[in-house]
Amino acid sequence: MTIKRINIGPRMSQAVVHNGVVSTAGQVALKAAGKDAGTQTQAILDSIDGLLAEAGTDKSSLLTATIWLSNMDYFGDMNEVWDAWIDKAAPPTRACVESKLASPKFVVEIAVTASVPG
Amino acid sequence: MTIKRINIGPRMSQAVVHNGVVSTAGQVALKAAGKDAGTQTQAILDSIDGLLAEAGTDKSSLLTATIWLSNMDYFGDMNEVWDAWIDKAAPPTRACVESKLASPKFVVEIAVTASVPG
Amino acid sequence: MTIKRINIGPRMSQAVVHNGVVSTAGQVALKAAGKDAGTQTQAILDSIDGLLAEAGTDKSSLLTATIWLSNMDYFGDMNEVWDAWIDKAAPPTRACVESKLASPKFVVEIAVTASVPG
Repeated sequence: MTIKRINIGPRMSQAVVHNGVVSTAGQVALKAAGKDAGTQTQAILDSIDGLLAEAGTDKSSLLTATIWLSNMDYFGDMNEVWDAWIDKAAPPTRACVESKLASPKFVVEIAVTASVPG
Repeated sequence: MTIKRINIGPRMSQAVVHNGVVSTAGQVALKAAGKDAGTQTQAILDSIDGLLAEAGTDKSSLLTATIWLSNMDYFGDMNEVWDAWIDKAAPPTRACVESKLASPKFVVEIAVTASVPG
Repeated sequence: MTIKRINIGPRMSQAVVHNGVVSTAGQVALKAAGKDAGTQTQAILDSIDGLLAEAGTDKSSLLTATIWLSNMDYFGDMNEVWDAWIDKAAPPTRACVESKLASPKFVVEIAVTASVPG
């Protein structure tokens, strides 16, 4: 089975496609660093939309999501943006837990998997 | 490849089946919120048994488990229940780390994947 | 679909192979417990190399990696070892977050998935 890698950097790929599934790296809001949790969440979901498109799929095919918040106080702000973004007919599974992230400027990180049509 | 979603809510599905694998959302002990870690663990594993059954599989086909504890002090209490539940001939991989959860009433969260017979 | 389990213990398997993908348990540096983050990272990546070999694959087929650091202060030390180890033509996706681990002696934990040739 072939592996397609998207946005290969020196340390990681931003997404990999294998066996009909795309997995993204944990996405942080690089251009919205230091901004509020809702703004960071929207920037991250925009990045995810882009990676899913590059993989040949979209959010209606999401399988799983893992969300890390640097402080659970951001749960409501993140969810407001999440709830507006998600395909309500086809939501992924989700786990959301509190973990500090690579930089204090990042308060949200999200990784997803999605089905990719064969 | 089709995606089967189980217990679809406005924010997430509780499980998705795709390509022979079921993935669950992070399960918390909704009905045992505020109770001790062992009790919450048992409630979560009961939920997982239910989701696996809905997906057409069971714990003997577990592939992976991720366990979040709000405090690693609960490691022993969680493991006691885990060790009694697991199929000792067919245990999944596991990662167990400390993260605060969506509410202080939840002290354990577990997500699993399992193989689903074709 | 068959499941191949590697290093089955009473609580978990160290890796499972299913449907062309190997998933490892979260690896900690058992023999380097209490040592510095770079040393622990190298020991973990050595363990991962071994598990991938037992599964019939290697790091050039990595798909995803999840890295937990007990303190994000270790980010640089972990990355130095990671960057030297990784196949720069074929890096996996990655998420790296802060979570305390099963024992304070462990400061790094890493779980990966990789493609296994059919």
